[in-house]
Amino acid sequence: MTEKEKYVFENMLARRSVRKYVKGKQVEKDKIKKLLEAAMAAPSACNIQPWEFIVVTDPSSIKKIEDVVIEGYFDATLLVVVCGYAGFIPWEGDIGTIDCAAAIENMLLAATAMDLGSVWIGGYDSGAVKKLLDIPDDVHPVSIVYFGYPESVPEPRTQYTDQAVHWEKFDAGRGHVKRDGCIV
Amino acid sequence: MTEKEKYVFENMLARRSVRKYVKGKQVEKDKIKKLLEAAMAAPSACNIQPWEFIVVTDPSSIKKIEDVVIEGYFDATLLVVVCGYAGFIPWEGDIGTIDCAAAIENMLLAATAMDLGSVWIGGYDSGAVKKLLDIPDDVHPVSIVYFGYPESVPEPRTQYTDQAVHWEKFDAGRGHVKRDGCIV
Repeated sequence: MTEKEKYVFENMLARRSVRKYVKGKQVEKDKIKKLLEAAMAAPSACNIQPWEFIVVTDPSSIKKIEDVVIEGYFDATLLVVVCGYAGFIPWEGDIGTIDCAAAIENMLLAATAMDLGSVWIGGYDSGAVKKLLDIPDDVHPVSIVYFGYPESVPEPRTQYTDQAVHWEKFDAGRGHVKRDGCIV
Repeated sequence: MTEKEKYVFENMLARRSVRKYVKGKQVEKDKIKKLLEAAMAAPSACNIQPWEFIVVTDPSSIKKIEDVVIEGYFDATLLVVVCGYAGFIPWEGDIGTIDCAAAIENMLLAATAMDLGSVWIGGYDSGAVKKLLDIPDDVHPVSIVYFGYPESVPEPRTQYTDQAVHWEKFDAGRGHVKRDGCIV
């Protein structure tokens, strides 16, 4: 295995959701810039780059957003609200969402590499977030990402399972099997 | 900058869409396994892990899939059809798609680290792909990813732009600006 492979894989497995951050410890401006550079290195269908990133560091704004997130109080000191613009996407569907998701995964991996913690937030009152952050009608808050310095660092892991792998065709003998750790 | 940061960022910027592969050069089995381990290290809402990965290496199957992809002939020797299962997702919307997208971005980055090329394919006849690969009704082919050894390696880049960054609130003075390189 090359050095490159080693570092990239180790970092990928080290990316875990962090739900408790060191209170008040700010993420440095240069690290925020690196997160955004990582985000915008993601692929984008037809290179539309539908993404808009709202960087929130003001503690009172963070508090207001946490209030409309489902179980969202983790003492994060940086929130990035990742939004998709759908205005000139020439087809139906979820391409804008997919591009934003790829950008977010890049941010999470970049955060891990810089010893930051992160967690991807999907459950929140979207209308309330739009109102709080002056997000225009044609822009959709796809996800919120919390960042900060982790109180503790979870063990690296992959959740690889043969259950999810099909060779050449979908294995007709099995549908989707509920996975270990699934909490719904 | 630490070694870890250096390798992770360099690899992220080196991940570019490759649309011409070395004809007939197979991706090794152990590399396919690493791609899938990377995919399943991605985060998943409520840890649902809605993903199912169909690994296609048979040249005649690849040809049949290429036939239903929009402009999809690149001599790829490995296709991974990433599917989402929506059966027990307890809310509406695109969470399953988001999880699959995060898994795909991990695969692309893992591919780059192993000197493979990749390209994320969103434009194809979904019904035809389902039929070709025996995908059941309750499973949705979110995206197809092509892999192979690149004929040439594109220059690393980020498409970072200040246009996409908003501080504390969405900048009311600007909506989404069409980005450089956008081809629609």
